[in-house]
Amino acid sequence: MKLKEFLRKRLKQNVEKGPKSDVVISSRIRLARNLNSKIFPWRANSTILESIWKNIKDILKKQKELANGEVFYLPNLNTLDRQLLVERHLISHEHAKNNGPRGAVVSNDEKISVMVNEEDHLRLASITHGLDLASASKSIDSLDDKLSQELGYAFSDNWGFLTACPTNAGTGMRASCLVHLPGLMMTDKIEPMLAELSKLGVAVRGFYGEGTQVIGDIFQITNASTLGRSESEILQTIERVVNGIISYEKTSRQELLEGKKRIVTMDKIFRAAATLMSAHTIDYKETMILISRARLGISLGMGIPWKEEILNSLMIITQPAHLQELMGKNLNSEDRDIIRAKIIRDKLNKPQSKQ
Amino acid sequence: MKLKEFLRKRLKQNVEKGPKSDVVISSRIRLARNLNSKIFPWRANSTILESIWKNIKDILKKQKELANGEVFYLPNLNTLDRQLLVERHLISHEHAKNNGPRGAVVSNDEKISVMVNEEDHLRLASITHGLDLASASKSIDSLDDKLSQELGYAFSDNWGFLTACPTNAGTGMRASCLVHLPGLMMTDKIEPMLAELSKLGVAVRGFYGEGTQVIGDIFQITNASTLGRSESEILQTIERVVNGIISYEKTSRQELLEGKKRIVTMDKIFRAAATLMSAHTIDYKETMILISRARLGISLGMGIPWKEEILNSLMIITQPAHLQELMGKNLNSEDRDIIRAKIIRDKLNKPQSKQ
Repeated sequence: MKLKEFLRKRLKQNVEKGPKSDVVISSRIRLARNLNSKIFPWRANSTILESIWKNIKDILKKQKELANGEVFYLPNLNTLDRQLLVERHLISHEHAKNNGPRGAVVSNDEKISVMVNEEDHLRLASITHGLDLASASKSIDSLDDKLSQELGYAFSDNWGFLTACPTNAGTGMRASCLVHLPGLMMTDKIEPMLAELSKLGVAVRGFYGEGTQVIGDIFQITNASTLGRSESEILQTIERVVNGIISYEKTSRQELLEGKKRIVTMDKIFRAAATLMSAHTIDYKETMILISRARLGISLGMGIPWKEEILNSLMIITQPAHLQELMGKNLNSEDRDIIRAKIIRDKLNKPQSKQ
Repeated sequence: MKLKEFLRKRLKQNVEKGPKSDVVISSRIRLARNLNSKIFPWRANSTILESIWKNIKDILKKQKELANGEVFYLPNLNTLDRQLLVERHLISHEHAKNNGPRGAVVSNDEKISVMVNEEDHLRLASITHGLDLASASKSIDSLDDKLSQELGYAFSDNWGFLTACPTNAGTGMRASCLVHLPGLMMTDKIEPMLAELSKLGVAVRGFYGEGTQVIGDIFQITNASTLGRSESEILQTIERVVNGIISYEKTSRQELLEGKKRIVTMDKIFRAAATLMSAHTIDYKETMILISRARLGISLGMGIPWKEEILNSLMIITQPAHLQELMGKNLNSEDRDIIRAKIIRDKLNKPQSKQ
């Protein structure tokens, strides 16, 4: 099982931590690109899509940014394998679900991934830990430039990059940050903040992106439009907005320590940590709620004995497809809840040095 | 504050454990008695009640069973102090709430208590740990005999002991056991069992007796009638019934370990134990639910590191009046929940040898 090996290899690598990681889990840049010589995927038949895939894939494999990376041809993967890629944020739900010749090429460290024949011919993505849009942008730009030369992008002087859906045209760029906002959630300040953000041209989404649920107090902050502003303006806006959110969030976290709120906050945090260490069956949603509280406890210096990176990693590996790939078999929801609890207990009850 | 000292002294004594204590917390015998020379309390005025109290109290103090015991004259006690006596099962809710000259005399170890001028002139009670109605009965019988001689009881050859309420006439005796039934509760078998018990002339009550709620899966099993059967028949019936309940309860506990139920049971038990050790605010009802699960964990040999007696003692000392007497002041419910959580954490996080 190729995906299982891929996963095992990835899980052996060190979990990293980026700037301002107590609030920002990761930063991501995504570029939508299309070939000027080919019709858009939604109008193309299977034969055309297959030739596009083969052509792009071969060129991608030659790029140094993707050297030693993995090539996933989705028609060859079963539902579980595809779901794993979704859970690792390497492909979209839609890309997993669609039919036809399509795939993804992923760098060895998973920091760069390219979807081929999703809504657009190419979706390039780059991810970094913490708040670091500049690094994410930098590492995708050189790849983008080379692909532009080798493949020839659909580009209009008036509209910029042309895309299957007009909401992605122009820069074709989305800059996004995954932010953890337990303070704003617990102090009931999230709704007014979301309302403010929409006025600033910033969209807020769930854990897996557009149209998905917020779980574990984690939100995706991204630019609402790709057109009419330069790449650097978009980056600056998102960076400024996210810094503002960090500041609100930190103020809220401090409020949680004031007066009688302090005990209620400690109660939630320590109950959550204790439950993570002792549950014998737990679903993903509860896992995320408890991890959110434990992360908050770390950030508030409450003596929660785990590293933030360990909790971030648990958020990923306790997802349903991850559990099934790790166990090497399909598991029903009841069995997944049991395995999930065991993995969490084993990880969190280990001496800190061995985590 | 006299009650505070009384409580501190009591809390220093060792917590005991009786036979079959994994199911039966305690056994209790209660006798209703009246003086033949005086009218029943509900018809007596204050002057008469006071002379009854003084007379009985003086005689009670001389009895060796009550030597070095405590005398509580309820009009001298504030609401909190009276509530403490209710929580320690030394007086009834009604006795605490009523007006007029009335009181209680309690032996040094609290195993024997006598209420004076409750519904009847005398309510004698004897309590033992675990299932041990014979001991409870034995220790109250000699006191009862001596009081009968010294005071002269209202007794009819046809009806037996005469009481204020006909439901207590005859033997005037209630034999009861406080039983912990988490197995029957978790396997949803409690309702059919309760239906069976009522057919056997056995009444089931809550944690504080008649008309009170069941909390922490604890039920009081007692004889429904006092008339028409001898004391020893009542004792035998209750003992037989309680042994039957123990057997059903143990079967149910074993069922909780079968197949997939095992994980769900472990989950509940370990989450409960972890929450008790880590909560920073907790109400009494949740405390009792969690203690019930932890007790079950001990009985199932799941490696819960506490003695059953410690949990039994926590059930008592985390009651509202106990917390307030311990802290030496009135506390609102929010503050009580915080103190309760701290007392539980301190007790359960201590090394086992020092519990």
